[in-house]
Amino acid sequence: MNINVGVLGATGSVGQRFIQMLEDHPMFNLEVLAASEKSAGKKYSEACYWYQSEPIPEKLGNKIVVPTDPTHEAFEDVDIVFSALPSNLAKKLEPEFAKEGKLVFSNASAMRMEVDVPLIVPEVNPEHFKVLDIQRENREWDGGIITNPNCSTIGAIITLKPIMDKFGIDMVNITTMQAVSGAGYNGVSSMAILDNIIPYIGGEEEKMETESLKILGDIDEDNKFLYANFKIGVSCNRVPVIDGHMESIFVKTLEDANPEEILKVMDDFDPLKDYNLPTYAKPIIIKKEVDRPQPRLDRNNGNGMSITVGRIRRDNIFTVKYTALEHNTIRGAAGASILNAELYIKKYM
Amino acid sequence: MNINVGVLGATGSVGQRFIQMLEDHPMFNLEVLAASEKSAGKKYSEACYWYQSEPIPEKLGNKIVVPTDPTHEAFEDVDIVFSALPSNLAKKLEPEFAKEGKLVFSNASAMRMEVDVPLIVPEVNPEHFKVLDIQRENREWDGGIITNPNCSTIGAIITLKPIMDKFGIDMVNITTMQAVSGAGYNGVSSMAILDNIIPYIGGEEEKMETESLKILGDIDEDNKFLYANFKIGVSCNRVPVIDGHMESIFVKTLEDANPEEILKVMDDFDPLKDYNLPTYAKPIIIKKEVDRPQPRLDRNNGNGMSITVGRIRRDNIFTVKYTALEHNTIRGAAGASILNAELYIKKYM
Amino acid sequence: MNINVGVLGATGSVGQRFIQMLEDHPMFNLEVLAASEKSAGKKYSEACYWYQSEPIPEKLGNKIVVPTDPTHEAFEDVDIVFSALPSNLAKKLEPEFAKEGKLVFSNASAMRMEVDVPLIVPEVNPEHFKVLDIQRENREWDGGIITNPNCSTIGAIITLKPIMDKFGIDMVNITTMQAVSGAGYNGVSSMAILDNIIPYIGGEEEKMETESLKILGDIDEDNKFLYANFKIGVSCNRVPVIDGHMESIFVKTLEDANPEEILKVMDDFDPLKDYNLPTYAKPIIIKKEVDRPQPRLDRNNGNGMSITVGRIRRDNIFTVKYTALEHNTIRGAAGASILNAELYIKKYM
Amino acid sequence: MNINVGVLGATGSVGQRFIQMLEDHPMFNLEVLAASEKSAGKKYSEACYWYQSEPIPEKLGNKIVVPTDPTHEAFEDVDIVFSALPSNLAKKLEPEFAKEGKLVFSNASAMRMEVDVPLIVPEVNPEHFKVLDIQRENREWDGGIITNPNCSTIGAIITLKPIMDKFGIDMVNITTMQAVSGAGYNGVSSMAILDNIIPYIGGEEEKMETESLKILGDIDEDNKFLYANFKIGVSCNRVPVIDGHMESIFVKTLEDANPEEILKVMDDFDPLKDYNLPTYAKPIIIKKEVDRPQPRLDRNNGNGMSITVGRIRRDNIFTVKYTALEHNTIRGAAGASILNAELYIKKYM
Repeated sequence: MNINVGVLGATGSVGQRFIQMLEDHPMFNLEVLAASEKSAGKKYSEACYWYQSEPIPEKLGNKIVVPTDPTHEAFEDVDIVFSALPSNLAKKLEPEFAKEGKLVFSNASAMRMEVDVPLIVPEVNPEHFKVLDIQRENREWDGGIITNPNCSTIGAIITLKPIMDKFGIDMVNITTMQAVSGAGYNGVSSMAILDNIIPYIGGEEEKMETESLKILGDIDEDNKFLYANFKIGVSCNRVPVIDGHMESIFVKTLEDANPEEILKVMDDFDPLKDYNLPTYAKPIIIKKEVDRPQPRLDRNNGNGMSITVGRIRRDNIFTVKYTALEHNTIRGAAGASILNAELYIKKYM
Repeated sequence: MNINVGVLGATGSVGQRFIQMLEDHPMFNLEVLAASEKSAGKKYSEACYWYQSEPIPEKLGNKIVVPTDPTHEAFEDVDIVFSALPSNLAKKLEPEFAKEGKLVFSNASAMRMEVDVPLIVPEVNPEHFKVLDIQRENREWDGGIITNPNCSTIGAIITLKPIMDKFGIDMVNITTMQAVSGAGYNGVSSMAILDNIIPYIGGEEEKMETESLKILGDIDEDNKFLYANFKIGVSCNRVPVIDGHMESIFVKTLEDANPEEILKVMDDFDPLKDYNLPTYAKPIIIKKEVDRPQPRLDRNNGNGMSITVGRIRRDNIFTVKYTALEHNTIRGAAGASILNAELYIKKYM
Repeated sequence: MNINVGVLGATGSVGQRFIQMLEDHPMFNLEVLAASEKSAGKKYSEACYWYQSEPIPEKLGNKIVVPTDPTHEAFEDVDIVFSALPSNLAKKLEPEFAKEGKLVFSNASAMRMEVDVPLIVPEVNPEHFKVLDIQRENREWDGGIITNPNCSTIGAIITLKPIMDKFGIDMVNITTMQAVSGAGYNGVSSMAILDNIIPYIGGEEEKMETESLKILGDIDEDNKFLYANFKIGVSCNRVPVIDGHMESIFVKTLEDANPEEILKVMDDFDPLKDYNLPTYAKPIIIKKEVDRPQPRLDRNNGNGMSITVGRIRRDNIFTVKYTALEHNTIRGAAGASILNAELYIKKYM
Repeated sequence: MNINVGVLGATGSVGQRFIQMLEDHPMFNLEVLAASEKSAGKKYSEACYWYQSEPIPEKLGNKIVVPTDPTHEAFEDVDIVFSALPSNLAKKLEPEFAKEGKLVFSNASAMRMEVDVPLIVPEVNPEHFKVLDIQRENREWDGGIITNPNCSTIGAIITLKPIMDKFGIDMVNITTMQAVSGAGYNGVSSMAILDNIIPYIGGEEEKMETESLKILGDIDEDNKFLYANFKIGVSCNRVPVIDGHMESIFVKTLEDANPEEILKVMDDFDPLKDYNLPTYAKPIIIKKEVDRPQPRLDRNNGNGMSITVGRIRRDNIFTVKYTALEHNTIRGAAGASILNAELYIKKYM
């Protein structure tokens, strides 16, 4: 008994990843592809410029795109929508879907930091799903909105969680080297990035610094968010890489830890292994070669859902430093929303 | 009255930069181009694969390459040699030149950390030149060896010096994104770096962590090196950029400082402006645009001799964070040696 | 006695090249920078995102941008305008400037193929300037419009001219590999071109096939264009290179010729050497290394004004084949217009 | 009943592709991984630097590499070896394997043009397999050597075959834009190709011009090769693309043809569809979008075994021009040898 789902913002960069990952999904029937008025009424294959290296799935290519309107008849039998909307549209449209009774799993940043919106990485803070009850009550919605973090946040957080659980965290310092796909198909011009680096991504550092503390924090007995209280400082850079965000991460733990112990808690970290979630892969893959992870060689590890970690070593200031890599449009976007949905269903539906 | 000079390792990547920068130098006559036995006896233009974007200087292209042997007659009237030798050869050959009375300004890492070898960035620690006296006494040399630091070290140090002088430094954290030219022409294969990052450069992190403390340290009354005692931790990455090392730098000062104050001491830093050194440029250029510096747009600032700094801002852990860029084969290599020689001559000869 | 000039479309990719090349020009005073309404009234340095690797010329950075209106007072003392306008705007605005008595040297494609508009490469068809008289008569203009060809056309034509003059041309086949700067700063997204080639550039093949025949053709006694009558077929590709269009060119001559003879006529080709034009460089530079020209190493030859040619060799179908390279935004755009103006002035003013 | 096979040159770029394609092959058991003395005795995962984007197959990673010696016991039960040897070694070693009774399917160029060695593209000239009989007789071998063409030759030939069969071919002109992987992992340095094109690949043009005529030719009643007699001229370029050779191809047919007819014969071309070969895919996939094929988007079509063709259009000199793309290390190398073996077995064993 599968659940009917739709994708909002289906023609864009993250939308295309949703289409790929939902095409033959064992739990979901992808019934509705929604996009802007300009695309609505066209066949999906004509409405979007498909630029994945695998061909467009045939049956989906022939689907007619509908407008992003929850009252459109196409959404009638749809219970869940995945949102790849840009943030400004998400802010307006996602609540409309929630009000019409849809459960929205959103990759957009618009609602992430709201006090009654769960911001979930399923391996890290699944207990935050409970805040959905408050959200529904507050907003008088039959549906609801569940978000996942910014692409560059997820990779860091998944590696920090097992460290925090075992040793506690005092301070985290991160410098990112992020792929151009994170900015969408037209986000970074070739003149801007060939033979170059751009040391700035608007809003990204702030997102990483605030989202991390929300996700790694607790919720109190009233289901209010209690932010984690370690210090975190981030510097973000755009590099000429297609897919895969790299991060140099420095962590100071509260209790003593050596690199071998840090490696072990990361390698052992596998909290959802018993749920049999279709999109799940081992969250952290450790590479022992001295020069890994590398975006081109490691971004597809775990079908793009694993964070690849390497070079765990001592630092002169922090307890350890290491390099982490995540596939930003899979683990960092579409895959994150889908995994949230899979776990939510297994636990609550 | 110009000084006759030679270049060791003249055919390689850094050697070519020496040739370009010495071609029309007002203080130096470039008399000798030395390279391996394989190249010796050939015209320079035939011995090397010239891959600079400006053509090979004609009169130098026709020069006959000589072997790297200080007793070769070509070196008879040469007082100074600039060394672009690989480290293993430098270790053996540079002392031979020093013994024969030549002053060796070396870009090689072999001798940098020796207790009687000055490791100089002329804007930062010109007083270390004095250690040359001890070196000559120790080793019974008429000449001597003066080194400059590793390419990725220089950019950081020049920006740290004015901060240290005014506010003191407690801790420094750096993540580098380094250009492929830093590894020499054949150092990084295209298969290794296209659409990719390599989070490892052999020995680089250790060099940055040790050389920085030597250069930013003092010398005592016996002309012994007293290392600076702040903490520094580094993570190095290779990126698909041709020239220009970028660094995300985080600094905790001993005394309070805000980003505007840090900007000001950097912008005011100009210790050698009165020496009229031909290769000198303002050491630090501040860019105020939010997305600068960028390697392709800023590496040639100050004819490749200036460090370009941008995004000076508060951090949650450190006092400030900023991005610095240097041209790694000019300011970080050939230009560094030449500026050392220029200042040494003005001060001591 | 210099001539006052202005630049239309001053903030764009080609506009910036005009600014660089006119900054210290011995014949021209760059008095007016014109751009869209959005930019007008701002300082040039604020109106444009300057992305050249040399800093913006200071005195020009402070100039106030004016609207693209020939009746604006700023144009009062301006005799010549250089146009970097997009084609649709050029079609409307360039005639307005011509009507107001300005001589427009245009890089836009809008007017190139008009029957009374000279399309000039100064080394190739300077006699076409005469058509300007007809244009003025036809259109009752005091000024006039003189165009230069499409960026990828120029490189081919300059190499074909000496071959045609000596041996005649029967057929020409060209496959281009064109730099992203040819499409303007935002023309090619990084997602589109990293690790990729795009085998299509809208309208480019047609332009190369028609413009070449106009430029290499004659004008009859009534100053009408007689197109050259060889056959030409072109295939255009976009490649991940920043500047520099490469072309694999195959030529069948009417009379027998061998590669050495072809090389010689190209190398000897230097028709304007006696004019002392400031922007002039030897039109064709021959490289004898087997693997040249290369965009990154050769695009700046002759300050970006020379076509670099290599690998002149026999072909099984055509008489010879060779590779030609031109700097597309200098020789292929801004420099082409400026050289046209320089020659026109020397000959007619 | 599967056949035991080995791979010679197993650690290199093409060797790794053989490993990937043979891992779970339904007709072959990959029993032996052979490489240089330096690698022999090590586990495969330690002997080679695996740089594919999918992880190394586990069971093969643990295999012990053997020396490239046909008398080594490891080869005892092996009937077929696939050769990814460099040409100089292939010339010496492949005959030794053939003499020891092995059937060598070779990707090396060493033996391709020998008068008794079949050079096969299975969709194009399977009847050339018959020459193997002559080879065995000539050389008194129990085994034999069957070669496949150079990577850039295959893409062109497969598209030319259906055109030749239907319309005849008079002349072919090709300009290639070839990926760096074609030169092996260390073949092209990043300094050589970032922001650049190299208009030369040693020996490549000659290979394309001669191999094409052998493959598209006949064999006479004495099983001697009769070369095809159309004219072909080629110009080869290296571009900054990881995988996927692009070719601008111009064809003049003997009989009239229009682009639609050419498209149809290509699209209909499917000569081996009834053989059920495991590695077989539709030889030619036509893309109708104006800007395709593109290496990054189309190289994996047909699991890397299909040639993708687009932009079939009229030319002013030739009958048609079009763009073809092939995955150079799959269809152009490992996959070509494996498909040869599959067809040979189906037909003759």
